[in-house]
Amino acid sequence: MICIDKKEIQALSRLPRLNLINSCMGYKSANLIGTISKQGRYNLAVFSSVTHIGSDPALLSFILRPTTVPRHTYTNIKETKFFSLNAITSALISKAHQTSANYPEEINEFEVTGIEPELKNDMAVPFVKESPIQLLCSYVNEYEIKENGTIHVIAAIEKIFIKDEMLDSDHWIQLDKGDIVAINGLDGYAKSELIKRFPYARVAK
Amino acid sequence: MICIDKKEIQALSRLPRLNLINSCMGYKSANLIGTISKQGRYNLAVFSSVTHIGSDPALLSFILRPTTVPRHTYTNIKETKFFSLNAITSALISKAHQTSANYPEEINEFEVTGIEPELKNDMAVPFVKESPIQLLCSYVNEYEIKENGTIHVIAAIEKIFIKDEMLDSDHWIQLDKGDIVAINGLDGYAKSELIKRFPYARVAK
Repeated sequence: MICIDKKEIQALSRLPRLNLINSCMGYKSANLIGTISKQGRYNLAVFSSVTHIGSDPALLSFILRPTTVPRHTYTNIKETKFFSLNAITSALISKAHQTSANYPEEINEFEVTGIEPELKNDMAVPFVKESPIQLLCSYVNEYEIKENGTIHVIAAIEKIFIKDEMLDSDHWIQLDKGDIVAINGLDGYAKSELIKRFPYARVAK
Repeated sequence: MICIDKKEIQALSRLPRLNLINSCMGYKSANLIGTISKQGRYNLAVFSSVTHIGSDPALLSFILRPTTVPRHTYTNIKETKFFSLNAITSALISKAHQTSANYPEEINEFEVTGIEPELKNDMAVPFVKESPIQLLCSYVNEYEIKENGTIHVIAAIEKIFIKDEMLDSDHWIQLDKGDIVAINGLDGYAKSELIKRFPYARVAK
């Protein structure tokens, strides 16, 4: 095995360090966050840090680096309090990755990447039409991670839209039935396939 | 599409709600955290919430519910300040899932599940020998998520051990070369395969 210690990590140049640290803790969730600005402009950005926080109440979180691209996402969420979270499928990876380019605020990433937006009833935020799992979320709180100045945003799940055949009888969502991908590092997208579901683990008597 | 709103989520019984909320935001990272108690007892527990926080300094985080099983992990980390993070391969999923059983504190999950521990040089924490990515991490800080009482633990990456053939020339780790899985919900394990790596996304001129 290769061993890379803290000093060697710090001595790497920026891109190798980003690659290494972004890929060493395993696969990451692949989602597009859709928002609308106060002026009514749409924004769409890829996120790989969306994590489950709790089920009762239903909460999720994601990490924002204040200095990087999805800053418009943060501004819009703070202003309008809502966002959509849309699962990325293998058909969407090329367009989804392109949303990470540093577009100016007036650019609508739906338009420029060719991802079709979907509007639902009385909700202002745009969803990704071809995404088989779409969540409406509302801003709840944020915690500054003082160790590096990132922001840990906490959000509540307001509505879940799921393609019918993905939802199992016990409300588990089988992600590979929707062809949902996982992210490997900064820029790798992986197709996944269920091996097995396990029963609740018990201590043997 | 099926729509499930906040009221319907709250009205679900516990297990369907856990299944739904744990699977609606996509694939999760699959890791085993190894610790040692002050008394020298080993502990091993599966975690699906490990997330990248930053690369410079190299930080990761995970979520702990104070009332649930991996509580021994937390106690040990607080006491000894170190833990190992070990990627779960498809060969490990059955044993790894079994570590989530509610074993009493005096039980060594390595022994009871048949996962072989590995000791390295002067490090006290046990690693998972067959894991192709092993990290030594140190406790840095924690933030209480006051919305539900969970704890967001921040840790620094001290050392990274990687199977040679997984490390690319630009320090990106190709996870499928180590047969590393992703987690779908509470109890589903998925095999993943790289589709594509993309170049850095740029705004077209």
